[in-house]
Amino acid sequence: MPTLLLDKTICLRNIERMALKAKENKLSFRPHCKTHQSIEIASWFREFGVSKITVSSFFMARKFAEAGWEDILVAFPFNRADRMTLDNISGAAKISILLDSSETLPFLEGLKHEIGFYIDIDTGYGRTGIKAEDPEAIDALLSAAMKNPRLQFMGFYCHAGHSYKASPSGINMIHQKAKRDLNTLKKQFATYSPLALYGDTPSCSNQIDFKGIDELTPGNFVFYDLTQETLGSCPKEDIAVALSCIVTGKYADRRQLVIHGGGVHFSKESLQINGHTVYGRLVTPAAEGWTFPVENTYVTSLSQEHGVLKNCGSIFEHTQIGASLLFLPVHSCMTANLMREYHISDGDTILSINN
Amino acid sequence: MPTLLLDKTICLRNIERMALKAKENKLSFRPHCKTHQSIEIASWFREFGVSKITVSSFFMARKFAEAGWEDILVAFPFNRADRMTLDNISGAAKISILLDSSETLPFLEGLKHEIGFYIDIDTGYGRTGIKAEDPEAIDALLSAAMKNPRLQFMGFYCHAGHSYKASPSGINMIHQKAKRDLNTLKKQFATYSPLALYGDTPSCSNQIDFKGIDELTPGNFVFYDLTQETLGSCPKEDIAVALSCIVTGKYADRRQLVIHGGGVHFSKESLQINGHTVYGRLVTPAAEGWTFPVENTYVTSLSQEHGVLKNCGSIFEHTQIGASLLFLPVHSCMTANLMREYHISDGDTILSINN
Repeated sequence: MPTLLLDKTICLRNIERMALKAKENKLSFRPHCKTHQSIEIASWFREFGVSKITVSSFFMARKFAEAGWEDILVAFPFNRADRMTLDNISGAAKISILLDSSETLPFLEGLKHEIGFYIDIDTGYGRTGIKAEDPEAIDALLSAAMKNPRLQFMGFYCHAGHSYKASPSGINMIHQKAKRDLNTLKKQFATYSPLALYGDTPSCSNQIDFKGIDELTPGNFVFYDLTQETLGSCPKEDIAVALSCIVTGKYADRRQLVIHGGGVHFSKESLQINGHTVYGRLVTPAAEGWTFPVENTYVTSLSQEHGVLKNCGSIFEHTQIGASLLFLPVHSCMTANLMREYHISDGDTILSINN
Repeated sequence: MPTLLLDKTICLRNIERMALKAKENKLSFRPHCKTHQSIEIASWFREFGVSKITVSSFFMARKFAEAGWEDILVAFPFNRADRMTLDNISGAAKISILLDSSETLPFLEGLKHEIGFYIDIDTGYGRTGIKAEDPEAIDALLSAAMKNPRLQFMGFYCHAGHSYKASPSGINMIHQKAKRDLNTLKKQFATYSPLALYGDTPSCSNQIDFKGIDELTPGNFVFYDLTQETLGSCPKEDIAVALSCIVTGKYADRRQLVIHGGGVHFSKESLQINGHTVYGRLVTPAAEGWTFPVENTYVTSLSQEHGVLKNCGSIFEHTQIGASLLFLPVHSCMTANLMREYHISDGDTILSINN
């Protein structure tokens, strides 16, 4: 089986850097745990003063609440199917949810405990949320929600996920607009003293001015990946996870290696690099972490268990069947979700909550 | 959480049809279990006379051997990391592996029990295997492998996976070439009485002439999916699994619904339909299975937990937040691998081996 290696040194450095950035900007730090989905990795954040987290499902919320986290934002428009879990965990932990429609409110009648809610704001991503330019809709939702005595309005949440498909200047524009929008809303709804939560990894990694934002909620930065490197969120040296796979085939006519590592390990998420579709990038194991060969070598296609490295350059001659190769993933959230455990350099194995 | 529904009636019909096809063509039937990865679903094949199976990893081989399967082909070029598992399970079950290089042979020295091996043949797919046109290479591998007294040569294995990207006439050409190649090899190596194993789902579903083939090894046909429907392997009425997801958001400006169902449920595998990238297709629950709305409605993008249905047509007006919607997956192997359990119509839940 392929194994997912986690370089704890790189990971702790990523956590520390983001925690410091939040501190220097006088921001609260509520990291998203959907990338690692691990109780142990979440605990590493405690050393940096983190006491509240973000998750993307009630499955995660329950697991992290059971592990002692007492302030959890489920950053997903509330799903009625999660009502029982919400009631079960909101006694011991402060649970907050996202709302963007009054159609969801009937599913929150008769809550067992008080919970917080943030209004999900769309600053241009176009996935979920009320448009920042529509304060009337926000006001209507607020008035309706506040008829429920167990719903406590906390503020505004924005995930500017369109930054994942933007150029560096595009990411900057997206960030400036989101910041402007959240500041405008904070003024318009000042009587409620709302907080502004914000935190896509590209913006949190590169931007330096977070004026008016109260909490940062990035997630992917904990590991980063090839997508974030391509976006300019991190140098490749900050990518903290790599998939170790064994070479099982060599095909000289097309200079092709085949590894045991497929779509059920990497995920089928791909990235366009120089006009080619890639699923992973070869790195070389080093005493600490991994180093980067001069020549770029990529996983060029995947089936369920097979990974194919077509036209793989000089590595072809130097690699025998049975060799272990290491690959940076395209999207670490997806790879970690599939692999369900991490092997760290000291020999320990860390399980994820869905193991 | 989204749930994966399995229509047992459709599934049994798919199994029966393929079992009958094998029988009518006097072929042995060795279904691939990588799609369902379930002990219970594998047991449904027993009613149709199936006593041997194909899997794609030693993890699966071990699970199915523990469940009593006694003849298992691991259809993957042997990975040295699986040596211990191979020795552990090959006493109670007849295990066969694939070989395509003598570089793998040192990892098979001193086997605890006799095992079978098939030579993996490449008839044009270009993933793994020795090219069918290279009998010298096959002969060299055979001679080297047969020095190992515990390696028993069984025959030739071919997965013509390029059929997954072909037109109907292309699939026919791929099938004809594979059949011709395997028949030629059977003649060239007739002294060994080799078997010919063959079985991509598109060819097994549509082709009618399997002359010279001994065993069929398809897998995906057990559920089928949108990819197979698009390839013409099945009518949409034969797709046996659908993902049930709850609507959590409605956005009138772009007639967009958002569901709880993302890349960690559907998988990020996509399909091009009429120039659009799609991740799932809306169907309507029916008393038996599902029916197909006149209007095509697709999942148009996915993030980790969110599924987006942009410009989703008239369904927009008729759907409230909180409603359950059903979607056919693009690639059922990937979706089933992520979901890890099946809900069947009689209320039972079937776990997969990786649950």
